[in-house]
Amino acid sequence: MKSNDKNNNLSNLGEFGLIEQIRRQVKSDSTVPVGIGDDCAATIIPEDHVLLTSKDLLIEDVHFRRSWTSMYQLGRKSAAVNLSDVAAMGGRANHLFLGVALPIDIDATDLEDFTRGFLDECSAAGATLCGGDTCRSNGPLIISVTVQGSIAANQMVKRSGAQIDDDIYVSGFVGDSALALAQLQGDITPCDYLILRHNQPTPRLELGQQLVQRQLANAMIDLSDGLFADLGHIMEQSHCGALVDCRCLPFSSELRQHLDRNPADIETALRGGEDYELLFCADPNRADEVARLSQQLNLPLTHIGNIKAQDYSLQRIDINGNQQQVEAQGFNHFK
Amino acid sequence: MKSNDKNNNLSNLGEFGLIEQIRRQVKSDSTVPVGIGDDCAATIIPEDHVLLTSKDLLIEDVHFRRSWTSMYQLGRKSAAVNLSDVAAMGGRANHLFLGVALPIDIDATDLEDFTRGFLDECSAAGATLCGGDTCRSNGPLIISVTVQGSIAANQMVKRSGAQIDDDIYVSGFVGDSALALAQLQGDITPCDYLILRHNQPTPRLELGQQLVQRQLANAMIDLSDGLFADLGHIMEQSHCGALVDCRCLPFSSELRQHLDRNPADIETALRGGEDYELLFCADPNRADEVARLSQQLNLPLTHIGNIKAQDYSLQRIDINGNQQQVEAQGFNHFK
Repeated sequence: MKSNDKNNNLSNLGEFGLIEQIRRQVKSDSTVPVGIGDDCAATIIPEDHVLLTSKDLLIEDVHFRRSWTSMYQLGRKSAAVNLSDVAAMGGRANHLFLGVALPIDIDATDLEDFTRGFLDECSAAGATLCGGDTCRSNGPLIISVTVQGSIAANQMVKRSGAQIDDDIYVSGFVGDSALALAQLQGDITPCDYLILRHNQPTPRLELGQQLVQRQLANAMIDLSDGLFADLGHIMEQSHCGALVDCRCLPFSSELRQHLDRNPADIETALRGGEDYELLFCADPNRADEVARLSQQLNLPLTHIGNIKAQDYSLQRIDINGNQQQVEAQGFNHFK
Repeated sequence: MKSNDKNNNLSNLGEFGLIEQIRRQVKSDSTVPVGIGDDCAATIIPEDHVLLTSKDLLIEDVHFRRSWTSMYQLGRKSAAVNLSDVAAMGGRANHLFLGVALPIDIDATDLEDFTRGFLDECSAAGATLCGGDTCRSNGPLIISVTVQGSIAANQMVKRSGAQIDDDIYVSGFVGDSALALAQLQGDITPCDYLILRHNQPTPRLELGQQLVQRQLANAMIDLSDGLFADLGHIMEQSHCGALVDCRCLPFSSELRQHLDRNPADIETALRGGEDYELLFCADPNRADEVARLSQQLNLPLTHIGNIKAQDYSLQRIDINGNQQQVEAQGFNHFK
């Protein structure tokens, strides 16, 4: 519930009051000798580790609509989509930085909800908010997050390591987020499960780290642009082709029910993004180990296809068993 | 000159073409094992150093207007204001990350100019662009930069180290940027010198590093919010007061000429921000060493006042020699 208390607006709190309010909610962390409140944060990364960094912008009416998500979920998602990039390298997430540009209709309660969501997601990952930037916006709500993680230099999993014949796996279920978005765009209210999958994705940090410890993944990426698009990034950087068997794709029962009634929407599931599951490539001789990891984490890890030679390009076997060549395209901000 | 070539727009180039175009302009760097093009960049920071991180958002019509700055200068400034935060800790700048949300009227030439400016500023600092994020914007041009630097843990200069009786110094000239902004807002075209000071500030990295090597600075901050506001941040974190003698402030001849005709505008110079000079506090017994450093760097380092006990608060001696208490307030995004 939004309070209409006149004291509850950001101009009373002020820029530095706002920063102070966020700072008070952050727990101390021995790897952060200087946190919020100086020109830079100072942080310590483990010895013999490389630093992993990713940053993502989330802009109102481009990446999200405030009518489709709560501020709490938006806070969680803003952290989660960044944490997912660290998961995709197999790293541990350590430190986050948050920049926000706030329109005048955002009040202190909105910001509190957002911050609570952001910090809950940081806590779940064992990571600390260390700094950022706040200002006003004359237009949309703008969120800019930077995440820093770390990994032993020789353990890093890149997009470029896929080997011919590797099994291609995805974690969890794919297509839920894209279906939720399509329903929201069509003025249909998605069920609770689907809206949660779209608004509050789960970064697969534990999976990424376990794959690294067991040296199971030759290449890895998180599903942000869409299954085919993200597989396309691996193909490009690993100089390989791929075959995906759509009959094997892991769909939630909610998505499966929807596809039973609307079979053509499988394209939305394949092309849509924002599942933030991990796609990884593994030696087929190690399928048993992947299966054991799946059991241990209680997370489906589904074999959906195989890496092929480069001239094979991208082919798929559709739900009727027909094989055809496809384009590895997903969401492109400028098309 | 802007080309009207129809092929020159961003939708032809596409999101990944755009990223590839930027990637090709970045020189290789042995401290960047994974640069632009994976889920995270992987970077190496020197052993026994802490990582310094800062991030700043620059939003059209909040922080800049495209009619007041060239895209090249905007690129330089976007990097410079971030680099300045590393300078203010005494650190070395290593790696930058650039997020941009581009309105549809930005074309490939604009973006090329912007990127050239950004990379020129990185080169001047010896730093490398390692990654980022690009998307479209339905509203303003949005620029989000993260800078990472490093420093030996025991050498870091914080805002909290000022000692009673310390001399307060500022580098270069203060107030030029605020005067340029006031003129632009009043539809007056600033002279070339002033516009350059506003649109293309110089991060004082060499000064910050030299102060650290000689252990000359007890506390330091860069002038982004305004002289009194930034000194206020040091007072708050060092639990001290300060006296500033306005008769000693280092003004450029351009600003001095303006103040001769408009003496009241000294308030603009004192309250305005964005000079990106360094303000630091040093033991008065080491004034000779500060003077030698100033000569060596060919950069004015001007003694403008002294640190006092906390109950002294902030006082100034005005240009007529009268002493009075002042508020340590500068620009506040939410007031």
